[in-house]
Parts: sequence; C-alpha cells; structure tokens
Amino acid sequence: MSGGTLAALDIGGTKIAAALVDAEGTVLRRGRVPTPAGGGPAVLAAAAGLLDGLADGPVRGLGVGAPGVIDPATGRVVSATDVLPGWAGTPVRETLAELTGLPVTVVNDVRAMAYGEARAGAGTGFHRVLHVSVGTGVGGALTTGGDLDHGAHGTAGELAHLLVPDRGPVPCGCGRRDHLEAVASGPAIAATGDAPRAGTLLGRALAGLLAVVDPDAVVIGGGVAQIGPPYLDAVAAAFRAEALPPLRATPIVTARLGTDAPLVGAALLAATTPHGSAR
Amino acid sequence: MSGGTLAALDIGGTKIAAALVDAEGTVLRRGRVPTPAGGGPAVLAAAAGLLDGLADGPVRGLGVGAPGVIDPATGRVVSATDVLPGWAGTPVRETLAELTGLPVTVVNDVRAMAYGEARAGAGTGFHRVLHVSVGTGVGGALTTGGDLDHGAHGTAGELAHLLVPDRGPVPCGCGRRDHLEAVASGPAIAATGDAPRAGTLLGRALAGLLAVVDPDAVVIGGGVAQIGPPYLDAVAAAFRAEALPPLRATPIVTARLGTDAPLVGAALLAATTPHGSAR
Repeated sequence: MSGGTLAALDIGGTKIAAALVDAEGTVLRRGRVPTPAGGGPAVLAAAAGLLDGLADGPVRGLGVGAPGVIDPATGRVVSATDVLPGWAGTPVRETLAELTGLPVTVVNDVRAMAYGEARAGAGTGFHRVLHVSVGTGVGGALTTGGDLDHGAHGTAGELAHLLVPDRGPVPCGCGRRDHLEAVASGPAIAATGDAPRAGTLLGRALAGLLAVVDPDAVVIGGGVAQIGPPYLDAVAAAFRAEALPPLRATPIVTARLGTDAPLVGAALLAATTPHGSAR
Repeated sequence: MSGGTLAALDIGGTKIAAALVDAEGTVLRRGRVPTPAGGGPAVLAAAAGLLDGLADGPVRGLGVGAPGVIDPATGRVVSATDVLPGWAGTPVRETLAELTGLPVTVVNDVRAMAYGEARAGAGTGFHRVLHVSVGTGVGGALTTGGDLDHGAHGTAGELAHLLVPDRGPVPCGCGRRDHLEAVASGPAIAATGDAPRAGTLLGRALAGLLAVVDPDAVVIGGGVAQIGPPYLDAVAAAFRAEALPPLRATPIVTARLGTDAPLVGAALLAATTPHGSAR
C-alpha cells in the first residue's frame, strides 16, 4: 500500500483541523471548524463532518493527532488534561472508523508533529531527533531514523517534567514544582512577561538533557516558538553556554511545517500503519 | 569467534584491576595493582604487567574500561578529567595491543559497567536500561537490547549535568552550577553529610528524565550505591513521588556485579567487537 491520498485530523481544545495529504507529506486541501462542546462524541461527529466536506475522491486512510495519552492497541484516549473536557475514554479509532469507513490511526498530537517534522519537515536528514513543542504546555517526542520512539511506557520524549533551578509562578500541569513546563510554557511566559527567561531555562534544561539523549538535532515547534528571535536566541545561547563541548554544535532548528505538522505527521503515520494505531 | 577466555582491565585513578572472563561473563581470575604515577605509558605498562601475571592459557582478546572520552575509531583517550593525570591523549588500544599482542577494545568505564550489568548483571532481561553510576562523579549510560547506545556525539546516558533545583556546595565537575553531579556525587555527600538529600535529588531528577528516556529499568551502581538503604530508599521514594503515573512502577534495581561490572562489560564488549573499539 503506497501512494494515494490520506486524510488527517488535528483535534485541539479550540479547533479541529483537517487535511488531505499526499504520500510525500504535501498538504493538498485544508479545513477547520471550532471544537464543539459536548465531549468526545460531539467532537468526533464534527471532525467527521469536516472531513466529509473536504474529500473529493478516494482516500486510503485517516490519521488522527489528538491530545492525551492514546492506547496504541485500541486508539482510545487513556487519559487527557482538561484542554478538551470529556475527552478521556473516547474511542477515537472505533468511532471515526464507523463514521468515515476508513482505516484509522490515532496518535498523540505532539508525536504527530514530531513525526511530520521528522519525515517531511525540519527533522529530515537527521537520525535521532528530539522534538520540543512549547505552547499551552511543554511537550516532546523522539524519533530515530524517522520512526517514533515510544519508550517502555509510551512517554519517551516527554520533557515537561524535567527539573529546573527556578521556581515558576504556578505549579507544573502535573501538580508538582520546579518543572520545566511551569517556567517555560506559553502561560508561564504570559504570567511573567519574560520570554527570554523562559528561553534561557529551556536552553539550560536542553543542555542537560541532550547529554543523555544525544540526538543529531533538536526541532523546536509549537506556538511559543513563533515568538521568534527574542525567545529562540535565548534558548540557543543558554544551550551553547551550558552544554558539554561535544554537544554544543548540535543543530537546534525551528519547526518548518507550522500548524500543518500534526496533520502531515498523522497522515504519514496512517500511510505506514494502515489499520493500526500509534501512541 | 565465540567461546574462549577474554582478558579485561579496569583502569582507575587509584587502582588497576584485571580479570579473566569467560564468554558468559563469569570472572575466572582477578588481580589488582595500585595505579602508578607517570601518566599514560606508566599506567599501561603496569596494566600489561598485571595481565601477564594473570593469564594461564590462551586469551582471545582484551577489553579495557577506562576513564574519559574514548575515540571509538582509534581507542585513544580524547579527553579526561584529572582523576588520572596525564591520561588525555593516551593511545590505549595501540599501546596495549603492542604490549600484549591481543586485539584490544577500549570503552569508557561507565559504559563498560552498563554493558556488564545489561549482559550479565542487574539489567538482564530488560530491553532499554538506564545505568546510573554514583561515585566520585555521577555518570550514566544507556543500553537497548543489551547493546550500548552511544548517541550522536558519544555522550548518550550522561546524566551528570541535568539541572536540579538545589545548588550544591561545590560547582559541578564541568564548572557550572545547579547540576546533578554537584549535589549527588560522593564528594557532594561527603561535603554535606546528607546522603538522603542527595538521594532525593537523584530520584527527582530521574523522575523528570525517565519521562524522556522511558527505559524498562534503571540500574544504580557505583560506590555511593553501596551506602545502601538510607540512600537508595531516598532515591526510590523521591522518584515514585515525582514520576508521571505510567512511570512509577519502573524498576530501579541495584547493580549486581559490584566492582566486577567494568571488567565483565569490557570483556564481553571485546568478545563482540574483536578488533574494534567502543566509546
């Protein structure tokens, strides 16, 4: 099974995006609707309706990037934060397969972004890539040779809970203190008004982490990365100042696919796992 | 090339240990001498003399665990701290091959320990293992499926420089502040007299790190681990309190091979890479 158009969904707390994507990761058509209230069934009904209006020919599979921890065996949401009320427990794959008649692959949205960037974006050509997403939260994912590395418990790449030496104004989303997400997420930057400080802490944390993970490159994406130079320069400067000498030249590149990344990633995952599911 | 006795060396700042090891990782004979002053040539001459007195039959290869960053292509010491004065630049493989007539494999000592524990010790049966060594410094290494994971720049697993929220009494060995090694190494514990504090900080740092690396198990070795329960219980308690729910049950096990670990690891590496070198 190769070639052929793929459908993709990116389900978020405020909007649902859909796309048709070709086998090389090029987006052919796009659409979006606001995320309805009403929990999982309402969200998936809106998503299926959006896809229905977009398709203009045969589609060979559907890839879905969605928030939360996704059970790879069933495509069901194991757990989720309150970004999407009523989302935990939603049988995403089963419901969308019924509504669309397509084979459905479901993957966590940060993993979808990482896969998209690794296969068709800023991570292309690097063997091991640490994908860092800074937006409402801080998230991460690892790819090796263009494939997602899930780890032993499905968390691999999750860097939100690395310790930092500065305490943020609010606790981490996990409820604990001294974690990266509490000082470097979009809301933390909004609360302190200090994007360079957040960038410096991310850069320092990456320096420590990269010695352990030792990737060929880091891709930084998410809404906060779009602040641009004042933020990204602080990340890079802190990283280079703190990193061990052999690591200092590790490329830290900005994500290239923007808001298409989870759509491209989910579509390309659907192309490689036609009836499966991925975390 | 399988079966047959292997020779191994563990070169340290105060002593050189040697062993004969069988293909299953069982130590057949052991010896040790104090590390002489005089830099690399004197150390390697003493090591070769020690081996000479130990061997009692044919030996198929020599594995060497040594401090510092080892160039995998040449078996030369790229850089080293002052634990062994005059060690940086030493052509370990070339010199020992001349002195012993054996094919020589050289690997960093923490990596040798990790490989030994993964193949014949506490890491046996786990797919991805994070090996943590706490002694004079803090070090780490990663194995996947029983093989060392070196990473893109040869540092993979090195967790000494993870950020921590508490500042130690002395800077990290790398010269920076707020790093794990500065609060959790043997000297840091000696300076503060507070092993449980050091264990708590290691446990918290591991909780953040394990979300990223997501191994099947953590093996803790090195001299400090031999403090036993007051220290190891603090590591485990802090880890379980701080880790994300799916990670809390990750086994944290104590290294099983003790001071044999680098010898067993170096010997088994020599068995798999008969004429090569490993970082």
